Amino acid sequence: MQTFNYIGLAGRLSTQKAQLTTHKLIDFLRKNDVEVIISKELSELLNRTDVPSGDDHFLGTHCDLVIVVGGDGSMLGAARAMVDYGVPLLGVNRGRLGFLTDIMPKEIEEKVLDVLNGDYISEQRFMLEMVAQRDGEAFGHGHALNDIVLHPGRHVRMIEFELYVDGEFVYSQSSDGLIVSTPTGSTAYALSGGGPLMHSSLDAIGLIPLNAHSLTSRPIVISGNSEIRLLLGDKSTTIMHVTCDGQIYQRARPNDEILIRKKEQQLTLIHPSDHNYYETCRRKLGWGKHLTEQSEED
Amino acid sequence: MQTFNYIGLAGRLSTQKAQLTTHKLIDFLRKNDVEVIISKELSELLNRTDVPSGDDHFLGTHCDLVIVVGGDGSMLGAARAMVDYGVPLLGVNRGRLGFLTDIMPKEIEEKVLDVLNGDYISEQRFMLEMVAQRDGEAFGHGHALNDIVLHPGRHVRMIEFELYVDGEFVYSQSSDGLIVSTPTGSTAYALSGGGPLMHSSLDAIGLIPLNAHSLTSRPIVISGNSEIRLLLGDKSTTIMHVTCDGQIYQRARPNDEILIRKKEQQLTLIHPSDHNYYETCRRKLGWGKHLTEQSEED
Amino acid sequence: MQTFNYIGLAGRLSTQKAQLTTHKLIDFLRKNDVEVIISKELSELLNRTDVPSGDDHFLGTHCDLVIVVGGDGSMLGAARAMVDYGVPLLGVNRGRLGFLTDIMPKEIEEKVLDVLNGDYISEQRFMLEMVAQRDGEAFGHGHALNDIVLHPGRHVRMIEFELYVDGEFVYSQSSDGLIVSTPTGSTAYALSGGGPLMHSSLDAIGLIPLNAHSLTSRPIVISGNSEIRLLLGDKSTTIMHVTCDGQIYQRARPNDEILIRKKEQQLTLIHPSDHNYYETCRRKLGWGKHLTEQSEED
Amino acid sequence: MQTFNYIGLAGRLSTQKAQLTTHKLIDFLRKNDVEVIISKELSELLNRTDVPSGDDHFLGTHCDLVIVVGGDGSMLGAARAMVDYGVPLLGVNRGRLGFLTDIMPKEIEEKVLDVLNGDYISEQRFMLEMVAQRDGEAFGHGHALNDIVLHPGRHVRMIEFELYVDGEFVYSQSSDGLIVSTPTGSTAYALSGGGPLMHSSLDAIGLIPLNAHSLTSRPIVISGNSEIRLLLGDKSTTIMHVTCDGQIYQRARPNDEILIRKKEQQLTLIHPSDHNYYETCRRKLGWGKHLTEQSEED
Repeated sequence: MQTFNYIGLAGRLSTQKAQLTTHKLIDFLRKNDVEVIISKELSELLNRTDVPSGDDHFLGTHCDLVIVVGGDGSMLGAARAMVDYGVPLLGVNRGRLGFLTDIMPKEIEEKVLDVLNGDYISEQRFMLEMVAQRDGEAFGHGHALNDIVLHPGRHVRMIEFELYVDGEFVYSQSSDGLIVSTPTGSTAYALSGGGPLMHSSLDAIGLIPLNAHSLTSRPIVISGNSEIRLLLGDKSTTIMHVTCDGQIYQRARPNDEILIRKKEQQLTLIHPSDHNYYETCRRKLGWGKHLTEQSEED
Repeated sequence: MQTFNYIGLAGRLSTQKAQLTTHKLIDFLRKNDVEVIISKELSELLNRTDVPSGDDHFLGTHCDLVIVVGGDGSMLGAARAMVDYGVPLLGVNRGRLGFLTDIMPKEIEEKVLDVLNGDYISEQRFMLEMVAQRDGEAFGHGHALNDIVLHPGRHVRMIEFELYVDGEFVYSQSSDGLIVSTPTGSTAYALSGGGPLMHSSLDAIGLIPLNAHSLTSRPIVISGNSEIRLLLGDKSTTIMHVTCDGQIYQRARPNDEILIRKKEQQLTLIHPSDHNYYETCRRKLGWGKHLTEQSEED
Repeated sequence: MQTFNYIGLAGRLSTQKAQLTTHKLIDFLRKNDVEVIISKELSELLNRTDVPSGDDHFLGTHCDLVIVVGGDGSMLGAARAMVDYGVPLLGVNRGRLGFLTDIMPKEIEEKVLDVLNGDYISEQRFMLEMVAQRDGEAFGHGHALNDIVLHPGRHVRMIEFELYVDGEFVYSQSSDGLIVSTPTGSTAYALSGGGPLMHSSLDAIGLIPLNAHSLTSRPIVISGNSEIRLLLGDKSTTIMHVTCDGQIYQRARPNDEILIRKKEQQLTLIHPSDHNYYETCRRKLGWGKHLTEQSEED
Repeated sequence: MQTFNYIGLAGRLSTQKAQLTTHKLIDFLRKNDVEVIISKELSELLNRTDVPSGDDHFLGTHCDLVIVVGGDGSMLGAARAMVDYGVPLLGVNRGRLGFLTDIMPKEIEEKVLDVLNGDYISEQRFMLEMVAQRDGEAFGHGHALNDIVLHPGRHVRMIEFELYVDGEFVYSQSSDGLIVSTPTGSTAYALSGGGPLMHSSLDAIGLIPLNAHSLTSRPIVISGNSEIRLLLGDKSTTIMHVTCDGQIYQRARPNDEILIRKKEQQLTLIHPSDHNYYETCRRKLGWGKHLTEQSEED
């Protein structure tokens, strides 16, 4: 197991309580001989002039672990910012279990100490990268841990596009768009859109149509090594959007091409050693517990 | 049966063929002693200075029937324009059967003659009306034959709102929006969104969440006389949209209220006498024919 | 408001606790000058020789209210048994809120006293009746509060049938069967099968295909006064089943006809006066509460 | 490319036309110097005493290719019968394109000649194997190309079971059963049950609940190398069924365990060289063609 000596701190702290939690985490890490670096945003918010701070590049090049305090949304941002530096992420939530932030605030010192002692699970998650092309020229780039989504930017409902996988034509579709999802993203927007849950270790990509006009356009699961090409139809004259993790977006126009594939550099997630994927699903999705634990019912 | 002496013509004619069809229809109607009035748009497009033309108000006040040449989308526009004048509509498609345009171009003279002779089916369809309120003041109005839809105007995915029916709180929801659909609209966008088909004669309204975050937010069917209130959440700062039939939209902001209910004035649809609702469904949706008509299969 | 002087008690009491609750309820009712009659099953189970008991017919003809202790399943049985006698039902659950049993054990005396004092809500729910015909002869009958379901009786998956509504052919279908559901049943099996929730006051029937071979066979909502006819296909030679509320079943064969329509006699449900349909949905289905009540999240 | 000198013929020929097709195919193969062996069933049906015939074992040990005339159902049976002999299969349909039978009767000689000349595509498809255990003892075995399905054998709707994947508890479920599907089966029953389409080359298994009581029990896609264990609940006393490809079934009881995993021996499918997976999907599922090929619509 790798040991972590330089740990970055990032995240979004919207409450006093979360700020207090983070102050305590900083002190706890330092007491354990860890060099702590905090993000510019945290530095301003916490007013900790005693702690070195830096931007994403500084954190990426100086840290061997970044702890993110916040929700799954904060983790998505940190993932996109840190993946190219190869820095692993550890997520602490602010009171409600997330799929990516699996340490609860009250157990933070215990779990972080375990991690410092090498008692943790390390897991690779692949991300997607996107290139938007017009007339053969790239004009937009992006990457995402959860999903890359094509959808209409404004009030016009339906858009039209052709889908190609590994050079083969799959279908044309009139719909509210398409979600291209990693296994990590399969518990997020893709699930709302009717996609299947894909185990986090699966090497597969989900293609989930959003409210497709044709009722037979169903979610498709393809190999994680597939190259996906979306050719935007020229019927509608609107500006479409291509979003990365629902946080960053790129405008696109009819006849543009959107190319999506697995990003070469993968993300490393650090979990406490008692992490269990299916237990997180049960808790977040309300799946049934063991039959013997269930209360009586008719 | 009512007889039709003043017939308006409206629609969208994107092809030479559709224009030719309309020229022939005008001549056919006149040959049958009908006073024909065409819309301003058709007048310009067809260059028929020999035929009186007028705007929606003129058609609405002078015609006792309006024939719409186009797709279902053209019918939706005509319905919103004509409903307050109480003028019935008859739909002619441009080569592909619609749910609302059920006369095929090649049978147009035969079917229209039947209608002139009083051999037709007349059907009432209710519409929805919408009022958008801010701080208790109405700032937007609209009405729709198919659906009134709340959705995010731009790239932000999820919006938050509370739903009330007849004054009772139903649920709060985080989703891509909500479709409020008439039975007429249940074969359109609502069906793509996972809603049930509602028979055109049913006095009911469908509430269909769009990609709801919670998997238990499911389509609800309520009485056609229900009053629906959407209270937009103040979490997101974005501009939302409320669309009528996907064609007209109204911007809305957090804390605005959207009130939706059945419009008092109903729309009259005229169908050829061999019109059959379920047959249209079978043809448009590809439902199974009689078992005895099916080809052999394993 | 009607007052209740002769109250029947029925239900299924699988635990000591539920039996104790029922003993206390009997004593409480008697203390309040109510004549109590218990079902044969309860009489044996509780060994209450001091309380008159009788079969369904006796309860139906002597009681002006029947209180059912149990789950929704117990209520379904009581509904089918009592509907023809016009006796209203009041449901007490055994620790977990049901859609039909909306009094919790701990509040039983308070709520029942309210009902005795005339402080209650009375609601009509329609039921479905079914006739199975072979060669024009009826060979089976049934009725149901939730649903009447056609499905294959054994391991053969797919069955074939034609669906007619009010004499009109709707479609033929190859599937695992069809749920014909009342609004009451729309929160039960029909919901699991992908049907919409229908408000309990809606005069409508839901037709929900079970795993239809064709992806375009979708739930349909039709008028509550519709007559439904299922014509079983002759392709498969298996014995099919037609179930009422999932509790009673009738065998059927290829070429049999199943006729389903609203039962003339309706069921009266008695609710505590604070009963709220949508609140039950929120609690049973986990729908979102008021936005202001939600805990913070990212 | 392998050349085929000993070719078996199997299938179901329900029409005169299909029999004629098969007679011609036999003669065509012999004219091309192929040794033809027909199944016992075909031998009786066609009354071809001039052609050697044999049972599954004989075909499996003597043939280097088996051509199946019939529908996808016939191919499933042949797959289960031939997989352990390692004999590849080629499918000829009887007039309607199947997912597995992709040669049309009218093109049979042309396509089969191509295959004989080595001009074909060879594809591996994995199958599932199942062991049913009671008190630690295996009492039932099976294997399937499409799916292994747990469902109630009779009229009782809901069954209860616990799902484990690779030894980890996933969830308990109350439902009409569970489909465990290969990518090959993802276009069959699994699709009707709401599962995603999985590309035929994907190394993954789909777990699709049938009408689950909890609306959050959704399809899950896991690694093709996963070991699945279903532990049947002891609540219901009914006999359940475990079916292989919907054709063979095994009874099971409460507390039995069903173990399912990838079968070691894979199946080889032979396709004409112009075979295209997505084109078959487009034709069978009615997916949209190229946008430029679509007819005008509103």
